[in-house]
Amino acid sequence: MTVEDYMLSLGQAARTASRLTAAASTDAKNRALLAMAAAIRADREELIAANLRDVDQARADGLDAAMIDRLTLNAKGVESMAQGLEQVAALPDPVGEITDLKRRPSGIQVGKMRVPIGVVGIIYEARPNVTADAAALCLKSGNAAILRGGKEALQSNQAIATCVRAGLRAAGLPESAVQVVETTDRAAVGQLVTMPEFVDVIVPRGGKGLIERISKEARVPVIKHLDGNCHVYVDADADMLKALRIVENAKTQRLGTCNTAESLLVARAVAHTQLPAIAAMLLDKGIEIRGCAETCELVPQAKKATEEDYFTEYLAAIISVKIVAGLDEAIAHINKYSSSHTEAIVTENYTNAMRFLREVDSSSVMVNASTRFADGFEYGLGAEIGISTDKFHARGPVGLEGLTSQKWIVLGNGEVRK
Amino acid sequence: MTVEDYMLSLGQAARTASRLTAAASTDAKNRALLAMAAAIRADREELIAANLRDVDQARADGLDAAMIDRLTLNAKGVESMAQGLEQVAALPDPVGEITDLKRRPSGIQVGKMRVPIGVVGIIYEARPNVTADAAALCLKSGNAAILRGGKEALQSNQAIATCVRAGLRAAGLPESAVQVVETTDRAAVGQLVTMPEFVDVIVPRGGKGLIERISKEARVPVIKHLDGNCHVYVDADADMLKALRIVENAKTQRLGTCNTAESLLVARAVAHTQLPAIAAMLLDKGIEIRGCAETCELVPQAKKATEEDYFTEYLAAIISVKIVAGLDEAIAHINKYSSSHTEAIVTENYTNAMRFLREVDSSSVMVNASTRFADGFEYGLGAEIGISTDKFHARGPVGLEGLTSQKWIVLGNGEVRK
Repeated sequence: MTVEDYMLSLGQAARTASRLTAAASTDAKNRALLAMAAAIRADREELIAANLRDVDQARADGLDAAMIDRLTLNAKGVESMAQGLEQVAALPDPVGEITDLKRRPSGIQVGKMRVPIGVVGIIYEARPNVTADAAALCLKSGNAAILRGGKEALQSNQAIATCVRAGLRAAGLPESAVQVVETTDRAAVGQLVTMPEFVDVIVPRGGKGLIERISKEARVPVIKHLDGNCHVYVDADADMLKALRIVENAKTQRLGTCNTAESLLVARAVAHTQLPAIAAMLLDKGIEIRGCAETCELVPQAKKATEEDYFTEYLAAIISVKIVAGLDEAIAHINKYSSSHTEAIVTENYTNAMRFLREVDSSSVMVNASTRFADGFEYGLGAEIGISTDKFHARGPVGLEGLTSQKWIVLGNGEVRK
Repeated sequence: MTVEDYMLSLGQAARTASRLTAAASTDAKNRALLAMAAAIRADREELIAANLRDVDQARADGLDAAMIDRLTLNAKGVESMAQGLEQVAALPDPVGEITDLKRRPSGIQVGKMRVPIGVVGIIYEARPNVTADAAALCLKSGNAAILRGGKEALQSNQAIATCVRAGLRAAGLPESAVQVVETTDRAAVGQLVTMPEFVDVIVPRGGKGLIERISKEARVPVIKHLDGNCHVYVDADADMLKALRIVENAKTQRLGTCNTAESLLVARAVAHTQLPAIAAMLLDKGIEIRGCAETCELVPQAKKATEEDYFTEYLAAIISVKIVAGLDEAIAHINKYSSSHTEAIVTENYTNAMRFLREVDSSSVMVNASTRFADGFEYGLGAEIGISTDKFHARGPVGLEGLTSQKWIVLGNGEVRK
């Protein structure tokens, strides 16, 4: 069988299974998730042994320490996967929810019902825990899933898939509701993203290169974000203490996350009074400042920023800084340089806050809060399968709801159109 | 200037204008719409004269009567365009609406704000009224629009565009908020659908061939439906009178609309008692019946249906009929043969109604109502720019809300992440 035929067979099985997962009761889905968790705990030793084979191979292949770290599954990691499954079981089931019912003059009642998307393809790197996470979110939202993890994690993923199938079986759900791609041939990815008859949406989780390649090739919608070049704008009416706290948290709490602030804008009217203190805090935390000419005057330690700096997601101890005339320039700057992930304004001015919320064209826009809050758990989604910086369908953190769609429903009593 | 450069210049101008339309007040947008309506009424004679030139040319080119009919703009048509603009002005403004605000344990409030998509490209055939309709819906939803109508209507569209620009000017909005493509070169369409940096979504309105070609070429999302192969399923527990009324209305009220029923499914348990009466009504209305073997036994006038019939949107006085074992077979049949537009069940059985609503995978699913209700006005959307049979973003009738997106907003008071 060619890799294309193999992927088509997975697709066909997933499409068939998706009709059953869409109609599955909340109880059946939760029983499957809890049985998966139990199987994972019961198979702990096998999972760790399979993972060890992957890790040994990865070491032999000379993978770097960070990749090996993400690949490694220890007893704590296994327990955390099991707990993740249980947490998803505890989340409310979004499927079948009827909202917005309104009676129309014709007598019919029109509303919306939340339904699964169908078949979700997840493409990720060598992180075995994603296999369990993604399986759980797709199943709970009533979808079938095809999971394609990094080839370095194949044995781990197969071992986890065994537990996932055991859980599905225990609840009377089809095993093909969650399928792990068992070939390491890269052509499998190309096929997965170009079979709209079997796969409805692709969620790539990984580096920018992977996501760009998939978005370019895909013939189905892709839920993705490429960059998190997030901004904090300190307005002329900012509260000094809030500004300091928020910039500190947004930039320095974690350097490598996509919701970390990478750029700071300060209104000219308060640059003299506020920027030196903020800069001192950042420098004290070991953050390099790359600023505009005015910034460099106020902050002697700052380096000169290039145009490119303002487009850059550093994921490192660097921040770009620009002094702007005020709100209009801040909004224009953000809408030009941002990656549309998350931006925050610090202000006590009501109208400026409202204008920033409305006019900044990013998936999350905040007033007086740290950009670090842009996260599925912090937003109350319970879990997160990714963050979307696109405007269609899901935008921002994507949880169970983002893996569903809404159809129109009409409740009538024999009405016909006049 | 090449046609590609021309389209890029429209795109660039639209992108710039879209920042201003996104931030425009409801009042400014409504003033523009009312001024457009006034300009259209004032220019009635010029519009009709421009249209006459298009119609003369179309006649000389040998266009068929139906196309000439759709192209023709008389005094009544002009007044109806003006009223359409006023109706959109009267609709609630979706932009900026904040919903679902919830306080999180961290102290922040998280919610959603409805925002425009950005730039909408509309591609349509030789129907001048679409120029005014589409301009109105795009502007009211805060988007900029690039309109590309059929080449046969170019002079009419240019005359309407003059009125649209006058309206925008009168309200202080940029004229490039609505641009009509002034070249008839078909390469313009290819360029319009492949410049994601300037155009965020394409809405094609027209025949299946046009929509298929655009969907294939497009590099941005397309809001579309290809077919309306709609079903009515008469369940074993159907009310006889409701079944008769609904089938009559769904099939015979209008033959050529996308929400017209093209296929009838009848539960075997009631086929003997119900189908003859329904068939008699259909035959009496001049509808040809193409049925399965059992149908042909019960209805001697029926022709034998082929597999292809069950996939067909006739848009004509023909209906396909199949007798099914019951609800399960009906749902399976619909999910296989339907174009995912609109399906209705006729039943008094609560559980069957709920299962049909949930398990039928179409953009509109109805209980005891005619499929003809699948329509933006009937659903209370106020107006409709199209109907989507896709699962992403807008599904079913698409009104103002379908031309918007939602971003996350966070209202904080200095909160930072722990």
